[in-house]
Amino acid sequence: MPGPLAGVRVLDLTTMVSGPVAAMMLADQGADVIKIESPGGDLMRNFGTSVQGMSGAFMSCNRNKRSLCVDLKRPEGLEIVHKLVPTADVLLQNFRPGAIERMGLGEAAVRKLRPDIVFVSISGFGEAGPYAHQRVYDPVIQALCGLAEIQADRQPEYRPRMVRAIIPDKTTAVTAAQAITAALFSRERTGEGQHVKLAMLDVMVAYLWPESISSLTFPGHETDPARGQAGPDLVFRTRDGFITAGAVSDVEWRGLCKALEREDLLTDPRFVGVAMRSRHVAERRTVMSEALALWETKTILKRLDENGVPCAPVVTRTELLESEQVRVNGLIEMHDHPVIGKVRQPRPAARFDRTPAQIRTLAPALGEHNAELLAELGYAPAEVDRLAAGGVLAGQGTK
Amino acid sequence: MPGPLAGVRVLDLTTMVSGPVAAMMLADQGADVIKIESPGGDLMRNFGTSVQGMSGAFMSCNRNKRSLCVDLKRPEGLEIVHKLVPTADVLLQNFRPGAIERMGLGEAAVRKLRPDIVFVSISGFGEAGPYAHQRVYDPVIQALCGLAEIQADRQPEYRPRMVRAIIPDKTTAVTAAQAITAALFSRERTGEGQHVKLAMLDVMVAYLWPESISSLTFPGHETDPARGQAGPDLVFRTRDGFITAGAVSDVEWRGLCKALEREDLLTDPRFVGVAMRSRHVAERRTVMSEALALWETKTILKRLDENGVPCAPVVTRTELLESEQVRVNGLIEMHDHPVIGKVRQPRPAARFDRTPAQIRTLAPALGEHNAELLAELGYAPAEVDRLAAGGVLAGQGTK
Repeated sequence: MPGPLAGVRVLDLTTMVSGPVAAMMLADQGADVIKIESPGGDLMRNFGTSVQGMSGAFMSCNRNKRSLCVDLKRPEGLEIVHKLVPTADVLLQNFRPGAIERMGLGEAAVRKLRPDIVFVSISGFGEAGPYAHQRVYDPVIQALCGLAEIQADRQPEYRPRMVRAIIPDKTTAVTAAQAITAALFSRERTGEGQHVKLAMLDVMVAYLWPESISSLTFPGHETDPARGQAGPDLVFRTRDGFITAGAVSDVEWRGLCKALEREDLLTDPRFVGVAMRSRHVAERRTVMSEALALWETKTILKRLDENGVPCAPVVTRTELLESEQVRVNGLIEMHDHPVIGKVRQPRPAARFDRTPAQIRTLAPALGEHNAELLAELGYAPAEVDRLAAGGVLAGQGTK
Repeated sequence: MPGPLAGVRVLDLTTMVSGPVAAMMLADQGADVIKIESPGGDLMRNFGTSVQGMSGAFMSCNRNKRSLCVDLKRPEGLEIVHKLVPTADVLLQNFRPGAIERMGLGEAAVRKLRPDIVFVSISGFGEAGPYAHQRVYDPVIQALCGLAEIQADRQPEYRPRMVRAIIPDKTTAVTAAQAITAALFSRERTGEGQHVKLAMLDVMVAYLWPESISSLTFPGHETDPARGQAGPDLVFRTRDGFITAGAVSDVEWRGLCKALEREDLLTDPRFVGVAMRSRHVAERRTVMSEALALWETKTILKRLDENGVPCAPVVTRTELLESEQVRVNGLIEMHDHPVIGKVRQPRPAARFDRTPAQIRTLAPALGEHNAELLAELGYAPAEVDRLAAGGVLAGQGTK
């Protein structure tokens, strides 16, 4: 059964993470995504753990795509992409502002070939302003959007910190996938394509605002955005590991005290009622930390759960693979690749009961689909060989 | 000009963050979103800084919506929603598994009234498994999905940490908005609606995997997922603040040394070439930290930028409001509310050149649109008064 975006064709000219993951979400949902790479290939092919020349990171950002490896600086290379454009519904690019026009694939040129295309540009900062010329670099976005301040330690002194995952890149990917899908929906109703632009900085401010910045919503009534944050992390050490546990309501607090065999705390005046517990958050954390440290993880999690207290172990990524909840959710799939062997991938998160998103194919080798795609465009096999021999086409699909 | 989702009607039965923000993204893009609240109202109305009874957090999760405040436990209340369903394209709910059926608004009941509706269920963990019964609590998802381990400190000893923003909630919101839009696109082509389910845990594993977990992609070839992470945060102290700066390529490294007036480092054998700098990452960080600490923020940022080194100050959320890049991007809008006065909101991130997403109305008061919505359904004013007097309708829209 095809996915919800079956019948949509996407030309993915992006590299690294934000663009490729956006296009992969569309591919998972049934779109025919053609990844167009230069002869050097997406840099992501070189990052991290690799098997048989395929990196885990590239595999995980580019499944369900076909790869065309073509030298766009050569007129015959550009011509191939110009022939692809009329067959495409979406063109997605994340070059620095101005570059795509110089390549001969700017919006005006592309729209002449396919008037109703959805043309998508992803940038770090937008087209103008003091940072527009900078190379995009995830920590720079984290610094500028407020995330590094959100993550700051405030004891013993103020010290900003980064989040150790590239949140701006990934959030831009999901936001771009949504915007592209909305533009496709609109085109379905109006017949018209359009240019959709996303800047990572804009994405992050919109993403963080609802709880992390919303205390600045009312001019003249601003309050310190850090005030509302749960200051001390809700990670507790047990005798043999780390857990999280939270007790907000009276029922949960009673459950926590009972699980810890600390019913004496129920009459402690500092902790009677939600308001008092909120006022004495630091003392409560100290008491909870000391009490939890006496238990073994497995025992105390069972007791907390039996007493209605939300809780979980802090699992490592390696432990995640064996997690019972992950297993029940069928969350991590095992696929077979003819060259690489077994491959683990998380299934697409959203489950569509009529048009399921699914992993149909793994990530392509560089240029794997050169011959197939050129044949679809009407190129004769001898012509493909000539283009490959001349270096217009590159990668393994040219053999 | 209407947004890309103009003409789509969404019934938003969700509370808190993940569901409301998903529905708000659709509303920003032109959908007619009706937020259906119980007489107590969304709990989010009570959180954080408030002006005239409106909290900044609720404002920032619910703009562009209309509010219907109705007691669904009363047959006449349920009947109102049953009359709304045939007018709706999407129904979005995030009650715990099983609850929506007990309320008389399960998929089967709703689909009888509107056969092609897109029915959307957001949960924390899915419908089954060891955590399905737990109340959803952001730190629990962070602990289970690996994010708390990703954020762990490893020096002087392993200590997991939370990210201090509710990343699972917000990422689920954006992912849900994308999935709903894809289901609407599919319905446009096939005429058929479907049930779309999202679990926060599934969303987070899919979201984190591409770079944070992808070293576990190849069974038998797994490497430590923490190894690839930039260990020390790229936050540096200056004489008067904090900045981030990164120099990966040779050109950037030369630029950095020049900006710092430390050309002597260019011949330091530990730092010659990308590979050597990568091997001596800790020493390089120490040297950079000591050198940057001698400069004032403004001066060194100017010098770094002039020398082609990606860099930025670590801005606080309050400073963000005045940031030049934010101003150039027109990122933070000022709106007028008749009762509350001035209201700041970030504009929707994705920019559609033909069908712009925009903030048309601010978040509604509880039940603000009761009379308007019931009139649209054909209820006479006297009938609305009777339902309000009897407590079937509640909130300010009943006056």
